[in-house]
Amino acid sequence: MLATYAFLPPNLMRESFQFEVLQTDGATRARRGRVHTPHGVFETPAFMPVGTQAAVKAMMPEQLLDIGAKIILSNSYHLFLRPGHEVIKQLGGLHNFMGWEGPILTDSGGFQVFSLSNLRKVDNDGVRFRSHLNGDLFFLTPELAVDIQSALGSDIMMVLDDCLAHPASHSDARISMKRSLEWAARCRSHLDAKPEHSQALFGIVQGAIFKDLREESAANLIETGFEGYAIGGLGVGEPIPKMYEVVERIEPFLPVDRPRYLMGVGTPHDLIECVSRGMDMFDCVIPTRHARNGSLFTRDGHIVIRHAQFKDDPEPIDTDCGCPVCRKYSRAYLRHLFLSKEILSSVLNTVHNLFFYLDTMRKIRHFIEFERFNELLTVARSFRAQ
Amino acid sequence: MLATYAFLPPNLMRESFQFEVLQTDGATRARRGRVHTPHGVFETPAFMPVGTQAAVKAMMPEQLLDIGAKIILSNSYHLFLRPGHEVIKQLGGLHNFMGWEGPILTDSGGFQVFSLSNLRKVDNDGVRFRSHLNGDLFFLTPELAVDIQSALGSDIMMVLDDCLAHPASHSDARISMKRSLEWAARCRSHLDAKPEHSQALFGIVQGAIFKDLREESAANLIETGFEGYAIGGLGVGEPIPKMYEVVERIEPFLPVDRPRYLMGVGTPHDLIECVSRGMDMFDCVIPTRHARNGSLFTRDGHIVIRHAQFKDDPEPIDTDCGCPVCRKYSRAYLRHLFLSKEILSSVLNTVHNLFFYLDTMRKIRHFIEFERFNELLTVARSFRAQ
Repeated sequence: MLATYAFLPPNLMRESFQFEVLQTDGATRARRGRVHTPHGVFETPAFMPVGTQAAVKAMMPEQLLDIGAKIILSNSYHLFLRPGHEVIKQLGGLHNFMGWEGPILTDSGGFQVFSLSNLRKVDNDGVRFRSHLNGDLFFLTPELAVDIQSALGSDIMMVLDDCLAHPASHSDARISMKRSLEWAARCRSHLDAKPEHSQALFGIVQGAIFKDLREESAANLIETGFEGYAIGGLGVGEPIPKMYEVVERIEPFLPVDRPRYLMGVGTPHDLIECVSRGMDMFDCVIPTRHARNGSLFTRDGHIVIRHAQFKDDPEPIDTDCGCPVCRKYSRAYLRHLFLSKEILSSVLNTVHNLFFYLDTMRKIRHFIEFERFNELLTVARSFRAQ
Repeated sequence: MLATYAFLPPNLMRESFQFEVLQTDGATRARRGRVHTPHGVFETPAFMPVGTQAAVKAMMPEQLLDIGAKIILSNSYHLFLRPGHEVIKQLGGLHNFMGWEGPILTDSGGFQVFSLSNLRKVDNDGVRFRSHLNGDLFFLTPELAVDIQSALGSDIMMVLDDCLAHPASHSDARISMKRSLEWAARCRSHLDAKPEHSQALFGIVQGAIFKDLREESAANLIETGFEGYAIGGLGVGEPIPKMYEVVERIEPFLPVDRPRYLMGVGTPHDLIECVSRGMDMFDCVIPTRHARNGSLFTRDGHIVIRHAQFKDDPEPIDTDCGCPVCRKYSRAYLRHLFLSKEILSSVLNTVHNLFFYLDTMRKIRHFIEFERFNELLTVARSFRAQ
């Protein structure tokens, strides 16, 4: 059915994106689902490895497939600045450019402009900023954000949103949330005006830590209508319990028949907690960045591989892990590679940490499927409390 | 046969190492052969990727196998300093430590002490030096060089030799060559005294650019007797034609039934030229180091991938190359990864450059097999002369 997509009339194009809820958990808000995209299917709850600059750091696409990655995220902001979205379009789109045939979600650039660029100036039209690479001046509008992501050809694009530092006052958060709503509607109109597009567009709920603003944001976005809904503006410095609380409070306002994507979160523990609060999709740089810093995830928490205790340790990172690194290499070798600053250190550590995250998601899906997710959650919490 | 090796009496152990000459070229000194080691067979002429610190930079062992690497080189000097040969022995030897199941040749450390360490002081007993990592003082003797390589468990070990900077006077070169001969004999005795060892030991012909010294060195080494003979002390700054001349002059003095290994050489052109002068084995950091610097080999010479001309170039590095990178990625993407300082840039560039080297060796072997090596040589020379 999906394969016939190219022959559908333009107004049916977006039907190539579908979300099915397969199962909902009895004891929590967790659910299991399936997302169909023009580049394939992925099951939720899902974790998306981050490929900021059209590459998941230190990983070949084949290695990502090998450890079970189904969808990756890439960043419009970075690709707009280098090599340029038109170059990527000319080379057949982002999938072809980077050699990844599965689904891709692109972020709109809102968060990167906020966190990376210089001399940022926001008004209702858009955001003026200087490139963090060379100082060139750009003006990013909702329409341009859609055009960039159209050129990239991602399966799921995100609306341009206005991001705020934490803590923000209620009045600042309100202005910013309202602006984000306007921008979201402009993204929707601009995308819908394109003939024959096949990309899904997700709205982003904003409103900082204020319940009334978050509710207003969600309600307005739903009125505009998006293929999925993200929660933005979290994981920016607020306390973790506050983050969980915001997720828990917004979730009932999101439509059950659309995927919910919690942006930029978090630790393995955060994933389990937020799945229990009804979230379906996640992305985070923690597994890849920690890998390059030699911090490796195990069932019993992370280990710091450079520590002297691993000097002659013949055991794998985690004896219970089935990843290609744990099947073959000792902690002693991984410590040696890290201390020797070998590129292979980043490669092997990233394979392990991403596998750990993807395997955590598999476990979560299995526990939901067998109606035992609450047990997984209880174990995770008791381990956390130790 | 080789599988029964462990049951052979100690004095027959070294028989697990065998060299067969399969064919000699009519028009040149080129030859095709096969080397048997306890960890498998490789065909010559062979190129050995360099895995200095128990890792070929940016490459997993599976990727090396995938592009046709059969034997790799690693460096005793580096592994002695970090993590220590005893640690590697305790972890099952170098093959197990680094996850490479094929043959490994280890260098003795002579050249690295000469080129990397601080405060080097040579006398007839050995060489006293300070670690380039932390300044610790060590004393490396021929016996210790053998013990280190025994602990590592490489298939082919090299004698400890005294290395000289270019240019060297005849008298300095003579003293150094004589010392290297004594050290070689001490390595031989020390290895032969070990019970049940299965490692081959190669001698190293020294004598700088002086024909008489090189001849004396070769004759003496042959008298001591080694499983193979290397030419050392080249590629250290002498003019290329002088390097070819030295190889050409020594070759007739080396036994035909033992592999000849030209250490640390060279460009693809050097490989063809030195195969035509009877060399069987090579190692060099050029393909891996150039890869990390964005210099990529093609049939028509190398390209510098960062150049603006490749900005939107959809072609592979070399349209005629069958490597995993050229099958999938554009020059535009590889340029983007390089400029973005992505780790994947080093990985993909290394895959391509090593494939290019290994494929060059395959071509050389095929052309020898079909008695057309001289044509390959002629084409290489005419291209070079352009």
